[in-house]
Amino acid sequence: MDVVIHFAEQRAAPYSMKGSKGKRYTVDNNLNVTNNVLSAIVESGLDIHLVHLGSMGVYGYGTAGMKIPEGYLHIKIPNGEGLTIDQEILYPANPGSIYHMTKTQDALMFAFYNKNDGIRITDLHQGVVWGTNTPETLLDDRLINRFDYDGDYGTVLNRFLMQAAVQHPLTVHGTGGQTRAFIHISDTVKCIEIAIENAPKKGEKVKIFNQMTETHRVRDLAQLISSMTGAEIAFLPNPRQEDDENELHVENKCFLELGLEPTTLKDGLMLEIHDIAEKYSSRCDRSKILCKSYWTESKKNDNESNKLWADLNHLDNQDSNHADKY
Amino acid sequence: MDVVIHFAEQRAAPYSMKGSKGKRYTVDNNLNVTNNVLSAIVESGLDIHLVHLGSMGVYGYGTAGMKIPEGYLHIKIPNGEGLTIDQEILYPANPGSIYHMTKTQDALMFAFYNKNDGIRITDLHQGVVWGTNTPETLLDDRLINRFDYDGDYGTVLNRFLMQAAVQHPLTVHGTGGQTRAFIHISDTVKCIEIAIENAPKKGEKVKIFNQMTETHRVRDLAQLISSMTGAEIAFLPNPRQEDDENELHVENKCFLELGLEPTTLKDGLMLEIHDIAEKYSSRCDRSKILCKSYWTESKKNDNESNKLWADLNHLDNQDSNHADKY
Repeated sequence: MDVVIHFAEQRAAPYSMKGSKGKRYTVDNNLNVTNNVLSAIVESGLDIHLVHLGSMGVYGYGTAGMKIPEGYLHIKIPNGEGLTIDQEILYPANPGSIYHMTKTQDALMFAFYNKNDGIRITDLHQGVVWGTNTPETLLDDRLINRFDYDGDYGTVLNRFLMQAAVQHPLTVHGTGGQTRAFIHISDTVKCIEIAIENAPKKGEKVKIFNQMTETHRVRDLAQLISSMTGAEIAFLPNPRQEDDENELHVENKCFLELGLEPTTLKDGLMLEIHDIAEKYSSRCDRSKILCKSYWTESKKNDNESNKLWADLNHLDNQDSNHADKY
Repeated sequence: MDVVIHFAEQRAAPYSMKGSKGKRYTVDNNLNVTNNVLSAIVESGLDIHLVHLGSMGVYGYGTAGMKIPEGYLHIKIPNGEGLTIDQEILYPANPGSIYHMTKTQDALMFAFYNKNDGIRITDLHQGVVWGTNTPETLLDDRLINRFDYDGDYGTVLNRFLMQAAVQHPLTVHGTGGQTRAFIHISDTVKCIEIAIENAPKKGEKVKIFNQMTETHRVRDLAQLISSMTGAEIAFLPNPRQEDDENELHVENKCFLELGLEPTTLKDGLMLEIHDIAEKYSSRCDRSKILCKSYWTESKKNDNESNKLWADLNHLDNQDSNHADKY
């Protein structure tokens, strides 16, 4: 059996929300590539296992005290005649951006091609990735992975690490009460290996794994890094349309039972600060740090918010003209 | 308030299943046009009501004795700790073709743009349309609507009507036990008018109407038309991947309460046979009648099925060379 690992999607929620261009590119690219690879697998007539990188964000972050299952939900449907119907359904989608929306639409393609053509598919619902190196990339400096710290492509923890390294305030959006799921990049790579080794059986429904190892509130992460590095924390108006605060309980036993041994923040964070963020801080372009993608026009045009962002932005641009100071 | 009526989708399930080309065109066209119009509405900053033509097929046809609601389902989620969470969700999608799949993916776009940008949206989950004329097109022959009777674009009832008119056997797929929802074209037009006049309020969730007026089994329709016209019935292997038999109970009180007065098969069928199918039967190209789109490779390559289809096809092609006989 062959395997296709499908990572070919526009991957940034902020980029997907910048405006019509970003929305259209994200939908056009992400949905067509998924359909193209699926229809190509059908056309090939070969038994190919498709492994796709999805997102924890497909579930939404308002779970009403429930533990988010791995993809499927058991429900009861009252039929109005005193009877209740038991069903298992794909967890109801509740995406928070166009990017996440395309992942929920991918899921419908997977379900259809799996049902109609019997394609074996694994969809990895991944949390926020942090860290830079895997055991392989550590072998030589030239193998090092990219480290995105900017407002569009940088994930929250990596952004905080770089901000701390260049003495930039840690930028928390809103109250920082957003709880998110995290995973270290070396665990991500291991999970893909595990997914390949545990392909669904022929005829089995789409396998969905929650690819995350711990959850944290954004403001707690900022405080943790602040306590390690002395960095200041700046609370800024949230450019995203989302709840200020949310709980998040996630089932992730599939990967743990298959042998994943998580790299936790506790173990990996200081290494990342020293070996990556500080080591390469001279390459940082501060003018790229702030998030400049707004979820709605009214957020974009909110004068009071804009002033707070602009103050910080002004400092960054000044610093950017004197990059040699780092 | 302005209204955009969005009919700009590839509309044939069989076309969408012909092969990679049809699958890719359907996904590319249907999803991009929906996203394009939604992001254009956001960009315009105007309060525009989007009315979209969806399909009853998004629900799937295995409803376990339940009445299909208008878009949303009340469910109970056992949380594993003795508690049950009540939620209202978008009815779980279960599309039967790539075409129907794109409609379920449209629904996720509507939910997202409605939540994020407050766009007013109505999604019409339409049944199989039959009939040709509305009160307006009846005013003059030159206004007459197109009548698709071919295997890709013709809907089942219109196909039967044309088959009866040209003394072609009524082609029933499988046992004909598929139950489907139907609506006359004049009711479709009326429903769109009603949808426009009853736009969702600002901030209201996506309005979903089931746009159908009656349900029938395919074999019962064939028998009805056979009894009216003397046409033979040919049971052929089903080119689609679907259940042989299904029940279908559909809620449709939204439109009825808003004043829709259905044109029923009982009232309209004989008119359609005389005024359209028989009147224009000389234009029929019999070589286009049979369905030549297979849902899977194994159905396409099933020799026994192919022989049954080929026998009928052979007759059609012979007749096609003597079109003057009609």
